[in-house]
Amino acid sequence: MSEKVEAEMKEKKKKKEIKITPIEHGTVIDHIRNGQALKVLRILDLVESDIDSIVSVAMNVDSSMGKKDIVKIENIELKDEELDKISLISPEATFNIIRDFDVVEKHRVEIPEVAEGIVRCRNKNCISNQNEPVRSEFEVIGDDPVTLRCEYCEREMQGEEISENVI
Amino acid sequence: MSEKVEAEMKEKKKKKEIKITPIEHGTVIDHIRNGQALKVLRILDLVESDIDSIVSVAMNVDSSMGKKDIVKIENIELKDEELDKISLISPEATFNIIRDFDVVEKHRVEIPEVAEGIVRCRNKNCISNQNEPVRSEFEVIGDDPVTLRCEYCEREMQGEEISENVI
Repeated sequence: MSEKVEAEMKEKKKKKEIKITPIEHGTVIDHIRNGQALKVLRILDLVESDIDSIVSVAMNVDSSMGKKDIVKIENIELKDEELDKISLISPEATFNIIRDFDVVEKHRVEIPEVAEGIVRCRNKNCISNQNEPVRSEFEVIGDDPVTLRCEYCEREMQGEEISENVI
Repeated sequence: MSEKVEAEMKEKKKKKEIKITPIEHGTVIDHIRNGQALKVLRILDLVESDIDSIVSVAMNVDSSMGKKDIVKIENIELKDEELDKISLISPEATFNIIRDFDVVEKHRVEIPEVAEGIVRCRNKNCISNQNEPVRSEFEVIGDDPVTLRCEYCEREMQGEEISENVI
């Protein structure tokens, strides 16, 4: 491509940038593993429920560490349990808290040592899946990749097994 | 709020606008009824499948006609069947085709007269739900709100009954 054409393309690209209205208060979850954004919406209960907040999602966006997803939600601050769930499916995720249009806090999610009541065991015969008054419980035995071991049946879970079973 | 404070807020808001990288080729589906964006992703098979394209979604965005959703997908042009499905759940939707960063076409979806094989009948006992070699078929008997009548059991469907049953 000639330099002139390249410069014209760049100019055109700049003009067509779409501006998204900023949020006054809310949370931006960044560096979500690509393909996991809708799972994050499900964790935050933003899929089926009627919500009024502006939610924006970008999937397969280029970043320095490869493709990533981003979720931005107005008027919400994340609960610890929600952050734990996100950490299990996207350990590199960060969350930025926005107040008065400014990022006032920026954190990385932290993988918990124990995951209680937030993931179903992949073993259908596990006591935690038998409608007994038993809360699922996993020890986190690895973080790259995230690996869980069920406290009841000792079954181990990784990757999609986890993301498909996050409650 | 004093004029000065208001001006400052406005300035701040402007600064914090987030720019989303434009797409070179693709489609923007605009004026989706709010709450239906994820349904549109499902119609386009962008939920479970591994995709490489950049997808962005904005939900509950203010517009002159109330809240709306927007979906933007890189490197995709919509099939007629997909447009028919979208028209049934979001008759005001428009789709813009982007080539070389420019909007080259802008259309409104059109509600078909007959919906064949794109919606399941809400009547579980309908012959079209019995694993028989029968393709579902509905006459569109109203467009505000969209109303379908099953050609087999004459059951009528509107609103969520339709959006929950779009295949």
